Amino acid sequence: MNQTGDRPEPDAVKRALEVLGDRWTFLILREAFFGVHRYGHFQRNLGIGRNVLAARLSTLVEHGLLERVRYRTDPDWFEYRLTETGLDLFPAVLTIKAWAERHLLDAGDPRLLIRHRSCGAKLSPAVVCERCREPITAGEVEYDLGAP
Amino acid sequence: MNQTGDRPEPDAVKRALEVLGDRWTFLILREAFFGVHRYGHFQRNLGIGRNVLAARLSTLVEHGLLERVRYRTDPDWFEYRLTETGLDLFPAVLTIKAWAERHLLDAGDPRLLIRHRSCGAKLSPAVVCERCREPITAGEVEYDLGAP
Repeated sequence: MNQTGDRPEPDAVKRALEVLGDRWTFLILREAFFGVHRYGHFQRNLGIGRNVLAARLSTLVEHGLLERVRYRTDPDWFEYRLTETGLDLFPAVLTIKAWAERHLLDAGDPRLLIRHRSCGAKLSPAVVCERCREPITAGEVEYDLGAP
Repeated sequence: MNQTGDRPEPDAVKRALEVLGDRWTFLILREAFFGVHRYGHFQRNLGIGRNVLAARLSTLVEHGLLERVRYRTDPDWFEYRLTETGLDLFPAVLTIKAWAERHLLDAGDPRLLIRHRSCGAKLSPAVVCERCREPITAGEVEYDLGAP
């Protein structure tokens, strides 16, 4: 990596954090990936206050990660479903989960096993370069600042 | 994905957020990936208050993502370097960056290009299953709760 600190704005990571950079928001998404869709279920699993939960769900709908869908009428009941944008965040969440398991959990801590249905393996994610398919490491990239 | 909301604790994603779940912490790491190591340089790039910066750097050192290294004596001056644990988070940050570029930035917004030095390609990350090497999607995983 080079040594400069200059880069173009708006910065994508900064924008992502404006949407996700809140512990609750990220945990709500994690619940959604677990198959949680309904208000009471989010609340029960997270032990989150009603106002905070309502505000965070609204933010996620506003930014297009969740959609609010009516699943019952008279009276109207709604649930929250992951959109394509929300589902597309799953690989990133999985990558953070794997990093935390490697570096933050203790050897004896229980781990949530995830299975890759298509091949049957215990899922272990690798982040690779889309072109050469090699795993990406921080030391093998360079920033292309102001390239034409 | 199944419909349960039960899972083992401690949860790795939750642990990761205890360490990273703060906008400033994540942005400090991003700067470190850009090659920023020194206090004043972090401060200038992020426009962050001195107390907040000092506290977040300490947290990152405490959790083993950065190390504080003396680079000059008389007087002693220190810089912050990514550890192996910190460097190993790079693929996750890159995956979030790519997601944000796809879904949050507008078409005309400037993007920071990153090049994969080993193959020369403009770097586009893919998260694949370590075994079958196929891209991972949220729909193709299942949770293995209480497996032996």
